[in-house]
Amino acid sequence: MSDSEKNKITVEIHKRKYTVVGEESPEQIKMVASLVDQKMDEIQYAKSSLDTTQLAVLTALNTMNDYLKLKQDYDALLQKERKEDRN
Amino acid sequence: MSDSEKNKITVEIHKRKYTVVGEESPEQIKMVASLVDQKMDEIQYAKSSLDTTQLAVLTALNTMNDYLKLKQDYDALLQKERKEDRN
Repeated sequence: MSDSEKNKITVEIHKRKYTVVGEESPEQIKMVASLVDQKMDEIQYAKSSLDTTQLAVLTALNTMNDYLKLKQDYDALLQKERKEDRN
Repeated sequence: MSDSEKNKITVEIHKRKYTVVGEESPEQIKMVASLVDQKMDEIQYAKSSLDTTQLAVLTALNTMNDYLKLKQDYDALLQKERKEDRN
């Protein structure tokens, strides 16, 4: 995909603005930003002493963990699917 | 799972220590931390002017985006699987 097809969107997360460049639609980028902002709020609610960097790193850790778990489920399902296709 | 079965691990990400509490094994938590650290390095390499908060937030955004894309693929595969099961 060429640069001209990329979207450049400014989102606000915890009172700072971020310019995000991606192939995703502006709506998708805004949704992702809103989910990250929400997760940071949730962690902050549970532990108010954390600064923004800590909140963002813990959000990234949580999301990465969710990603890896989902990846395992996805791979298992894909394997099941391929087995069925062979039969 | 009771609290006594939870693991409490300290990991280091971009020169700061984070205490992570989770049901995952210490090895899993360390791997997740190392992946987040790597992602922050990659973003920093691409744009060296960012501070740690910006790096952490952009890492969280990237990871959340990856998660949502995988979730779409997973849901599509699950739907296909269910359709096949019915036939």
